[in-house]
Amino acid sequence: MEQLYSIAALSAFTHEVFLTMGCPPHEAEQATTALISADIRGIDSHGIARLTGYVRLWEAKRVNARPSIQVIHETPSTATMDGDAGLGLVVAPKAMDLAIEKARSCGTGWVAVQNSNHFGIAGYHAMRALPHDMIGLAMTNASALVAPTFSNERMLGTNPICVAIPSGAEPPFVADMATTTAANGKLEILQRKNLEAPAGWIQDQQGKSSSDAHALKQGGALLPLGSDREHGSHKGYALGAIVDILSAVLSGASFGPWAPPFPAYVPMPENAPGKGLGHFFGAMRIDAFRPAEVFKADMDQWLRRFRNAQPIDPSQKVLVPGDPEREMEALRKATGIPLLPAVVSDLQSIAEKFSIVFPQ
Amino acid sequence: MEQLYSIAALSAFTHEVFLTMGCPPHEAEQATTALISADIRGIDSHGIARLTGYVRLWEAKRVNARPSIQVIHETPSTATMDGDAGLGLVVAPKAMDLAIEKARSCGTGWVAVQNSNHFGIAGYHAMRALPHDMIGLAMTNASALVAPTFSNERMLGTNPICVAIPSGAEPPFVADMATTTAANGKLEILQRKNLEAPAGWIQDQQGKSSSDAHALKQGGALLPLGSDREHGSHKGYALGAIVDILSAVLSGASFGPWAPPFPAYVPMPENAPGKGLGHFFGAMRIDAFRPAEVFKADMDQWLRRFRNAQPIDPSQKVLVPGDPEREMEALRKATGIPLLPAVVSDLQSIAEKFSIVFPQ
Repeated sequence: MEQLYSIAALSAFTHEVFLTMGCPPHEAEQATTALISADIRGIDSHGIARLTGYVRLWEAKRVNARPSIQVIHETPSTATMDGDAGLGLVVAPKAMDLAIEKARSCGTGWVAVQNSNHFGIAGYHAMRALPHDMIGLAMTNASALVAPTFSNERMLGTNPICVAIPSGAEPPFVADMATTTAANGKLEILQRKNLEAPAGWIQDQQGKSSSDAHALKQGGALLPLGSDREHGSHKGYALGAIVDILSAVLSGASFGPWAPPFPAYVPMPENAPGKGLGHFFGAMRIDAFRPAEVFKADMDQWLRRFRNAQPIDPSQKVLVPGDPEREMEALRKATGIPLLPAVVSDLQSIAEKFSIVFPQ
Repeated sequence: MEQLYSIAALSAFTHEVFLTMGCPPHEAEQATTALISADIRGIDSHGIARLTGYVRLWEAKRVNARPSIQVIHETPSTATMDGDAGLGLVVAPKAMDLAIEKARSCGTGWVAVQNSNHFGIAGYHAMRALPHDMIGLAMTNASALVAPTFSNERMLGTNPICVAIPSGAEPPFVADMATTTAANGKLEILQRKNLEAPAGWIQDQQGKSSSDAHALKQGGALLPLGSDREHGSHKGYALGAIVDILSAVLSGASFGPWAPPFPAYVPMPENAPGKGLGHFFGAMRIDAFRPAEVFKADMDQWLRRFRNAQPIDPSQKVLVPGDPEREMEALRKATGIPLLPAVVSDLQSIAEKFSIVFPQ
């Protein structure tokens, strides 16, 4: 079913697509690296499978391939940037790098971004802090698919948060997660395979818990982490709300149900209170709190202690955040990236339209 | 069953208790205000019901009533503090106020604290930022009661996070939550009433989901927000882990299973990697990102839009984080604070021991 492609071949193709859209070469390269990092880490819903979506947004003139990304407000430890409707894949690394630069000079750096687009996986951006011995934070709002507790209206995106924390000899701690019970990508897999969704992932249009994986497309909603009130969905809702507010209200982007939809065929919400999607980034220098070497030795102890926590079932070891993605990365770097026929066919259509070659 | 007491009477009593322990008057007052704020906001498990626990920690010499709280490391936007084993109720507001001071001068302020104790509710500390037109963040690690996904070992505390965000005409956004499916306080209520716990709140010693509210006391564990792997417990586990690392690894406190236990009769874990409990605080000046008035007008729009989201059941309106606690605060300020007979009897024992008077 799935066919394997090399990272190099998919990257070269993606790079050509962004160049054809008119991205400057170094930005096309940045967007490619950010996008393909999702495929490498096994988050297939956010990788090259999204490329056609980006192309359609560009065709609809909702993505600007040659943005003039500006700092519009700043203090020693903060900045607000206007992404000029650029690809989030280009805008976000610039904003994260500014947070890192500010952290270098005053301990921490925090950057809110307005007028951007979908930025791929949060993990790619947050992890940029790691080589600098900094803790990285990345989050973004997104098109509304999630209903707050007690509501049957879609008000929030899956609003992911990533926190990346450096370590010493052990691989780093990387928690990258949607603030919903299940990521939309997992639901899409069930839809494709015509399988039922576990209770607690989605509700139907009336707000009733549903096991129909297609309920989301029929006016239903994804559920916040916690699934229902008794299991803490008000906490998942609060987390998604915090991401929405820091990313979009603090930056001046469009928040809540006004967040621009990712599918280009969905009309833009009317009376938008801000500009485009919003992101929020942070970088904290470890040695702004403690000597980095001491911290990293303690992090190694933390990571080992948690990996060696008593397992319920000896055949399923306890993991720490980042383990599954790192294992996937090792595998895919060795064997390549599997693509579903539907994704390949989408990419072939772009290849045809742009007169470039999709790898065999 | 429950008897009502005035806030003034409970505060005066608490103040006397802290003075008798030897706290300097202004610190006794600070500790009282922080502690009673939990009762006022309806978080009964973290209010005056804990006072006997603090007294026992002081008797066990695990709490220092006259701490010398020091900044041991700093940069323009950060600091690390040593709480000198003081009451968290005293150490935490000092640390939060330092974060606010740093935010005033460079946009944001971030303070990690080692060598502290239980700090009451996170909300009290985070909300100190609100009158300054700042976003406040507070978190703490705590004694290990929570098992990571796939584990039957208690490795993390209920590790709460509070984010408080200013608004204009509307009341502020205050999300204050344990990173578990259910707070320990809710479980204690079920234990007292001999009721079953909903599935997904706790597991037994073997790691099997349990509805026995007493399973926690029999070697079981609380479950991270999400309850099980299929419903995202790895995300709740990651959130609890982030709180543990920022509060305790970044500050040099004791992390994970080594966090000091709250009950004074539980022996201290051996080979502790750091000093005492850890907290982490943040303050971000709104106008470090956008003019505060513009932000607050947008927040008002955000809050109104979410409160007016379509309800599933018209009799249960959609809430925003902070609504339930604010409603409770209004009620209790008007009618007083209800205490259970067991709590009253505990407080009467302190009164007797300290030769002070507990209000009728």
